[in-house]
Amino acid sequence: MALREARREDIRRVVEMLADDELARSREDLTGDMAAYHAAFDAIAADPNNTLYVWDENGAVMGCLQLTFLPGISYQGAWLAQVEGVRVDGSLRGTGIGEKMMEAVIAKARERGCKHLQLSTNKRRTDAQRFYSRLGFAGSHEGMKLAL
Amino acid sequence: MALREARREDIRRVVEMLADDELARSREDLTGDMAAYHAAFDAIAADPNNTLYVWDENGAVMGCLQLTFLPGISYQGAWLAQVEGVRVDGSLRGTGIGEKMMEAVIAKARERGCKHLQLSTNKRRTDAQRFYSRLGFAGSHEGMKLAL
Repeated sequence: MALREARREDIRRVVEMLADDELARSREDLTGDMAAYHAAFDAIAADPNNTLYVWDENGAVMGCLQLTFLPGISYQGAWLAQVEGVRVDGSLRGTGIGEKMMEAVIAKARERGCKHLQLSTNKRRTDAQRFYSRLGFAGSHEGMKLAL
Repeated sequence: MALREARREDIRRVVEMLADDELARSREDLTGDMAAYHAAFDAIAADPNNTLYVWDENGAVMGCLQLTFLPGISYQGAWLAQVEGVRVDGSLRGTGIGEKMMEAVIAKARERGCKHLQLSTNKRRTDAQRFYSRLGFAGSHEGMKLAL
């Protein structure tokens, strides 16, 4: 299984993949000591319902995502799975890694007994929407965000 | 402050509000012992990043929602706030309770230092989309779900 939990030494690589993206580039900062990213990694690691994963083939980290399990009242008290920050290395897009990574995550969400797996993707990412549709995701919802 | 954490004795009322809805009615079950809802309530209560809230005016529970804080790597390790299961009692819609409830939650998310508050709402809920837009939410994302 190439999907494994991210380790502290993966943080820079994960942020590089997150930042290698037209929409996300200006959000990230790889120039400093990355203390905020380390604190975020610790917060994720401390939360049993949150895991940062990387896709690692023979020591080469090629993708990442965060998987969250949310307890909830709706659907007769069903757990909900959610992914955030899905990225595949820019030079490897279209090679099937994203699909394998998502299939591994779908299996984890099923194993945990979640009723749905949800995500939201910027409407400008039309390729991503096609990708998730192929995996069976329905674009049934409006994803709304408020900057605080 | 009328927003307070839900207690065990609020569970039936919360499920009644969730079920009093065209899209959600068939998902819920108020006929049995509600053991699954109690287990879900316990799971939420046990998770420091999840809270079920009700809107309570002088002992009358008029609305509910779940607030989740998600640690994340994106946006320089920013925390993300998310709401799920937002409902106002059917007889009280349009009276401003939803707005007061959401404003209280926005304040909580800001207080916690979250960068964004996000939610997804079924595309058929056009009233909800207008409501959230008025509060400043942007419909920037496609909300996608996979049934497991």
